[in-house]
Amino acid sequence: MCDTCGCNEKEGVKRIYRIQERITKSNEEIAEKNRAYFLKNGITAVNIISAPGSGKTTLLEKTIEALGDRIKIAVFEGDIETTLDAERIKNKGAFAIQLTTGGACHLDAQLVHKAIHEIEKMEEPPKLLFIENVGNLVCPASFDLGETLRAVMVSVAEGDDKPLKYPKAFKTSQVFIISKTDLLPHFDFSIEKAKEYALSLNPELKVFALSAKTGEGFDEWIAFLEELTSS
Amino acid sequence: MCDTCGCNEKEGVKRIYRIQERITKSNEEIAEKNRAYFLKNGITAVNIISAPGSGKTTLLEKTIEALGDRIKIAVFEGDIETTLDAERIKNKGAFAIQLTTGGACHLDAQLVHKAIHEIEKMEEPPKLLFIENVGNLVCPASFDLGETLRAVMVSVAEGDDKPLKYPKAFKTSQVFIISKTDLLPHFDFSIEKAKEYALSLNPELKVFALSAKTGEGFDEWIAFLEELTSS
Repeated sequence: MCDTCGCNEKEGVKRIYRIQERITKSNEEIAEKNRAYFLKNGITAVNIISAPGSGKTTLLEKTIEALGDRIKIAVFEGDIETTLDAERIKNKGAFAIQLTTGGACHLDAQLVHKAIHEIEKMEEPPKLLFIENVGNLVCPASFDLGETLRAVMVSVAEGDDKPLKYPKAFKTSQVFIISKTDLLPHFDFSIEKAKEYALSLNPELKVFALSAKTGEGFDEWIAFLEELTSS
Repeated sequence: MCDTCGCNEKEGVKRIYRIQERITKSNEEIAEKNRAYFLKNGITAVNIISAPGSGKTTLLEKTIEALGDRIKIAVFEGDIETTLDAERIKNKGAFAIQLTTGGACHLDAQLVHKAIHEIEKMEEPPKLLFIENVGNLVCPASFDLGETLRAVMVSVAEGDDKPLKYPKAFKTSQVFIISKTDLLPHFDFSIEKAKEYALSLNPELKVFALSAKTGEGFDEWIAFLEELTSS
């Protein structure tokens, strides 16, 4: 009990934890359904998590340019309100579905599940599905969407300490993308430090450092996706 | 009812809304207590919301350098895990309290309330209190901390469309700070567009465009804080 005002701090915190547990459990059940669907239909689903403005949509535009003629690609575009990003993806010729969360700060398995029903209407299902999460380095890390692979992205404009400050996204991902490397001369960002911090949290992470603008480091990323979808 | 797998989508969504309502209500009650405390003690509390890496801590460091000898300043440093930012603030000579959320994506009124008890131990209470929220442009917007003023910040590295994509932070703030303006030559960011988008959501917003690195636009920010705390 807090002596100044009589509020019961501990009880309030416990209540919120109980509520969070219930939300998480319900999400996990639907995520398993999504995962089973992807597996059954040979779809590699990549959940991309980053802060706002790290360049998720630009990465996807360039990836579609590089791979879209060889591999059937679809994109689920997570946004809170606008449909700007889905329009950008459609302009590149890929199948895109906008998932608008209406205020929520992350995609959840249920929203992805609804979008799967749209994929079922496609003549030929995609081989590679990108799920662009809401721009947020925190909450999306707690919500399994049933994805095959999770990629966390940080741009060099954000600072190399981000893995330490937002560890869950790094602990739960298999891939770490450092983006906008063409801007390195203007920022005090060390790729080595960012890698070291990220690998200290999760030694299994596969790291890519790339610039969607200049194409630097992009070949490795494309080769990785090709191998991922060929198996 | 979803016909493919029998899941009851609508019921799940309704349940989550009900849970969210309960969390919000409990937060509001504590926020009112915090607000009453700040008012009674003549403390101007500024809640700063932005994505990771927009430069919140750097802004505070420079603000303390410019104002700290005239105005007593304290900082509540919201972080998920590390105490790196509180150390940076303490090095500038201001009173800093680390609020570690232990995984949560935002500060809430209860965490701030606990830190208020630490302020009560100070010999002289601060005139100006900065509450640096967790780096997240989404969830913090939904949690009233009892602050006097809310400021949302976007760096020019993030893109000028951010107000449209994360509207709640802009609708609920009184101040909009565009940071890292020294980097404008390297980004396709229009200050005019960002302002226009933000003001279309909230015409009352006071906008500052500044660089903590070069000092550009910083005088207006400092003058604003001086006026705010003098009344």
